[in-house]
Amino acid sequence: MDIVSFEPDPYQYAYTFGGVPPVMSIKPGTALHLWSEDAFNKALTSVNDVASEKLDLRYVNPQTGPFYVEGAEPGDTLAIHIVDLTPARTWGASAAIPFFGGLTSTDRTAMLQEALPEATWIYEVDTDAGTVGFQSRFGNLELALPLAPMLGTVGVAPSGGEVRTSLVPERFGGNMDTPEMRAGTTAYLGVNVEGAMFSIGDGHYRQGEGEACGTAVEGAMNSILIVDLIKGGAPTWPRLETDEHWMVVGSSRPMEDSWRIAQVEMIRWFGELFDLHHMDAYELMTQIAEAPIANVVDPNYSVVVKVQKSLLPRRSAFDGMHDELRTMASTLR
Amino acid sequence: MDIVSFEPDPYQYAYTFGGVPPVMSIKPGTALHLWSEDAFNKALTSVNDVASEKLDLRYVNPQTGPFYVEGAEPGDTLAIHIVDLTPARTWGASAAIPFFGGLTSTDRTAMLQEALPEATWIYEVDTDAGTVGFQSRFGNLELALPLAPMLGTVGVAPSGGEVRTSLVPERFGGNMDTPEMRAGTTAYLGVNVEGAMFSIGDGHYRQGEGEACGTAVEGAMNSILIVDLIKGGAPTWPRLETDEHWMVVGSSRPMEDSWRIAQVEMIRWFGELFDLHHMDAYELMTQIAEAPIANVVDPNYSVVVKVQKSLLPRRSAFDGMHDELRTMASTLR
Amino acid sequence: MDIVSFEPDPYQYAYTFGGVPPVMSIKPGTALHLWSEDAFNKALTSVNDVASEKLDLRYVNPQTGPFYVEGAEPGDTLAIHIVDLTPARTWGASAAIPFFGGLTSTDRTAMLQEALPEATWIYEVDTDAGTVGFQSRFGNLELALPLAPMLGTVGVAPSGGEVRTSLVPERFGGNMDTPEMRAGTTAYLGVNVEGAMFSIGDGHYRQGEGEACGTAVEGAMNSILIVDLIKGGAPTWPRLETDEHWMVVGSSRPMEDSWRIAQVEMIRWFGELFDLHHMDAYELMTQIAEAPIANVVDPNYSVVVKVQKSLLPRRSAFDGMHDELRTMASTLR
Amino acid sequence: MDIVSFEPDPYQYAYTFGGVPPVMSIKPGTALHLWSEDAFNKALTSVNDVASEKLDLRYVNPQTGPFYVEGAEPGDTLAIHIVDLTPARTWGASAAIPFFGGLTSTDRTAMLQEALPEATWIYEVDTDAGTVGFQSRFGNLELALPLAPMLGTVGVAPSGGEVRTSLVPERFGGNMDTPEMRAGTTAYLGVNVEGAMFSIGDGHYRQGEGEACGTAVEGAMNSILIVDLIKGGAPTWPRLETDEHWMVVGSSRPMEDSWRIAQVEMIRWFGELFDLHHMDAYELMTQIAEAPIANVVDPNYSVVVKVQKSLLPRRSAFDGMHDELRTMASTLR
Repeated sequence: MDIVSFEPDPYQYAYTFGGVPPVMSIKPGTALHLWSEDAFNKALTSVNDVASEKLDLRYVNPQTGPFYVEGAEPGDTLAIHIVDLTPARTWGASAAIPFFGGLTSTDRTAMLQEALPEATWIYEVDTDAGTVGFQSRFGNLELALPLAPMLGTVGVAPSGGEVRTSLVPERFGGNMDTPEMRAGTTAYLGVNVEGAMFSIGDGHYRQGEGEACGTAVEGAMNSILIVDLIKGGAPTWPRLETDEHWMVVGSSRPMEDSWRIAQVEMIRWFGELFDLHHMDAYELMTQIAEAPIANVVDPNYSVVVKVQKSLLPRRSAFDGMHDELRTMASTLR
Repeated sequence: MDIVSFEPDPYQYAYTFGGVPPVMSIKPGTALHLWSEDAFNKALTSVNDVASEKLDLRYVNPQTGPFYVEGAEPGDTLAIHIVDLTPARTWGASAAIPFFGGLTSTDRTAMLQEALPEATWIYEVDTDAGTVGFQSRFGNLELALPLAPMLGTVGVAPSGGEVRTSLVPERFGGNMDTPEMRAGTTAYLGVNVEGAMFSIGDGHYRQGEGEACGTAVEGAMNSILIVDLIKGGAPTWPRLETDEHWMVVGSSRPMEDSWRIAQVEMIRWFGELFDLHHMDAYELMTQIAEAPIANVVDPNYSVVVKVQKSLLPRRSAFDGMHDELRTMASTLR
Repeated sequence: MDIVSFEPDPYQYAYTFGGVPPVMSIKPGTALHLWSEDAFNKALTSVNDVASEKLDLRYVNPQTGPFYVEGAEPGDTLAIHIVDLTPARTWGASAAIPFFGGLTSTDRTAMLQEALPEATWIYEVDTDAGTVGFQSRFGNLELALPLAPMLGTVGVAPSGGEVRTSLVPERFGGNMDTPEMRAGTTAYLGVNVEGAMFSIGDGHYRQGEGEACGTAVEGAMNSILIVDLIKGGAPTWPRLETDEHWMVVGSSRPMEDSWRIAQVEMIRWFGELFDLHHMDAYELMTQIAEAPIANVVDPNYSVVVKVQKSLLPRRSAFDGMHDELRTMASTLR
Repeated sequence: MDIVSFEPDPYQYAYTFGGVPPVMSIKPGTALHLWSEDAFNKALTSVNDVASEKLDLRYVNPQTGPFYVEGAEPGDTLAIHIVDLTPARTWGASAAIPFFGGLTSTDRTAMLQEALPEATWIYEVDTDAGTVGFQSRFGNLELALPLAPMLGTVGVAPSGGEVRTSLVPERFGGNMDTPEMRAGTTAYLGVNVEGAMFSIGDGHYRQGEGEACGTAVEGAMNSILIVDLIKGGAPTWPRLETDEHWMVVGSSRPMEDSWRIAQVEMIRWFGELFDLHHMDAYELMTQIAEAPIANVVDPNYSVVVKVQKSLLPRRSAFDGMHDELRTMASTLR
């Protein structure tokens, strides 16, 4: 297996999906050791740094990539398996940014109220304990929360010649901000352009479902991925697989539409896996699906629909790709 | 502890929250053994019964109750602890009802397309195995799914003299359709009228999050509850507690509003429990909240916001009511 | 034609649709001279009265009625023709109420921001000039705006035994808050209970589309109506007719659903009037419908879909009821 | 005044806002005579052409442009005045496209129902009568509807390096699909990139509010525009001005957000024009705003908020730009 390491210089960061030349070309089956900057572009390093003063909104959510995958063509399926995610710094940051987040008016849910107070929280990483430290800024509560690294953003170039900011979750993946995007997960993304042009970023040392205030414990991340290619079979929306679950991520507005998208794509997938009629799959999902919200803060809201494999007969999606990648991954750690 | 058993005659079923005289008056601290009819009012007993022919939409989701709780006044908090839920029949039913459900147009999300095909699924209960059996109607898949009994509907009379159909989830509880409403859960509901006038129903032998097609494995249920009263302290929206979690259920449309409601109520609760400033609570929720969707099919959509107690310092909500009810419950089984 | 006058005493005000005994029984074809209190229940009479201090939220939007219409049965159609609306006071009031309105967070679109500043605006009525006077409260602008009286609320008792606050617009009419509900308009409402039990209120001396801050120029109103009954033919959602337009009002959330409801009901109506296939009606609406928003502030949002009669062949809806009522009305003024 | 004519060859059509080199560079103050292809790219020329067979979805809504405006820089305001719109063909087309439109499930509002029947309607233009002819496809109704030419799409390149399909209405304008974009209207768009890079297209010979089925009477169009530049003053969202009205177009999802955006931008504008405090403007809008829906079918829904100038003291926006352009326009016809 080819193993490639890449740490971008700041001038190499990508801020969009699409519209950026590749940082390198890789073969299907390559393992990547990638470093990514945090979503604030390292603008917030202490509780005294507030977003409105330090954050340059033109340069947020920097992506590492895009990578050109040899042989990838529109209609193919890119498989990205996350082998390992390790914080690349000893601290992460989170911030209440004016008019950004789920419990404030925004540029979209436009209202006349004053902004919420600004604040920045710094979380110290305790690697030995496996925790990040929450310290309240308006009181005295301190908590050690389990480290639970994930990638907020994994995506490919959009279709139709579009170029989209890295803040958007969409059909092409992007800023889905789901805690399910963690070590052990394989993401399947439909390829829209030659080379797929995938990139990753937005490392979170931990994130709750919904990502209420809009920023997780944001931190630079060392990611180990294996990237592979399936000819054809492109899913309409991002599918995820772990040893335990089948998942789909839908992203749209209002949030019921995100859920509908994810449900319908899962029903489509179950049609493929189990030759199940869509009405039977609809009924079955009704009784077995889990539906954790991913984010309610990005330009599109994301919802995960998730099914426990153990409830169903054993099946291999995409010709057993996930198991194969798991095996390859085991040789890497 | 007073122990009261009640199995309503069909003429005693309630189809609304509010607007119905109590079936009986109980003292706070009473244990109730209740039987409830299924949401279809037993109209669907075989796969040959289709909803459009058998279902009388005026008489769906029959409730057992309402119960008048002595001493309950507006502003008080009713605590309903679910001790045990046991299927009262050997089968449950689920149905695709024309223009009802999450992946079809409805009377609200009105469109011009033809209805989906109608179908009814019957699930046999295997008590020994602890399963319900899924049998596909348009193919051959059969599955034994774990029994996971829950109550779709738990509610009190609304405020403002309103009377609402038992199909609606709202501030007063009602048809929230969350799998979290299971044995071991304590629900806290704000009292709006003298006597609280609570009722329960809509037993589900199992339900996925979202309740995609609109009907879970619907079945008559034997419920054991303990009902208690806290003077004052009424939450704005339903709060739930288990040994492991704090939870809030928000119900509205669009679904992002259901989530917002639940988040804000949880932040309010965390202010009470931990004396946490709302900005700190907002930040903390961002990193620790879970957000499983409950239903996307009722007139309001319901979302649960959920926090694992073990992540936080130990606190007693409502003066330790949940622990107290757990202790009482242990004497009942 | 029977002519009946009624001015309720405060103890007779209705605050709900359904759940209230009739103030009187009338025959179909009766003309009514009704007085209604303003939506604030006269709590705001000067710019110094702020809502949070003066408004009793249990007693807002008082309705005049309900009236029992002889012979009205479920499935029938109640026709309410507005002959004349005249301000019953020399001033109207409007207020910014904390966490109520379209450009603020609310109990549903729940957020953490501080409330907007409170303020009350008093509008003097100049009957001769036909204007109401806007005076800015935070500056010096004064404007004379044309009087344009309308009724915010016209409704019947709901179906299914429900009782709904008078603040809600729904299938049964209610608080639709559309400027189209003015003199010259006939409203057709489906009857849900024996006697129909309709009531009216929420007089607005003027209102823009959307009713942005949540309160129009609210004022006590003298209304002259003629009420008639059509056996059968109940529309699913409120239909309106003037000499110039066919209209439907849809009310739900999110607002696209309000629009969908109104469109589908209009297509249904065009099927009846023109024997038009729903696909042709869909296409035709695409090119000729108007779609003014009514309100974005009530528990449901209301949208009007509106078609100019002159674009189409002449047709009589409900057996020419509107023309008949116009003729009767002409004898009253 | 420079007068420039341009009719693109098909290979010159633009299908995105942003991401396309300019077809030419023009000076501020230039009059343009432009020809644009219809939104179907002329794929539907008879009622026998159905969208699923003839339409190439990669090449829909072709734009004429983009034009590089000399001196335009980010933060400036582009003024586009529509002098005249004349159908460039003797027929227009409209179509029901599977899973596209406002009263069908779509790729976003994803459901399991079958698609609506496909159909294409051809409208003959009668220039003398000033009408387009509707002919029902599932029955016999024929109607002559007034010609009311408008441009569905007017936009500039987006900010942040994004490239967006010409089907999207957004902050940069784009596919707003409002009947207000007609001869006599001046559109003000914030400039995001050097040269502004504006383009136009999607001529409609007529369109109702909401654009229910998703396609108006689509037709090739001859447009006469005058384009001018205001240094600075970029509005956040598109503003429109006619002799009679001030308008703003908001585009987002759900539709209440589109309305909120437009209201808040109008309040901002009224602050500039009348030095009105935002609370007074909020109150005033409540009583005077009109709110016609533009479209409920594009990836974002668009709502217009509109105020009649005659209700207010006379003011000149953007230093009297609209009046100036009207004067220039009068020399062109």
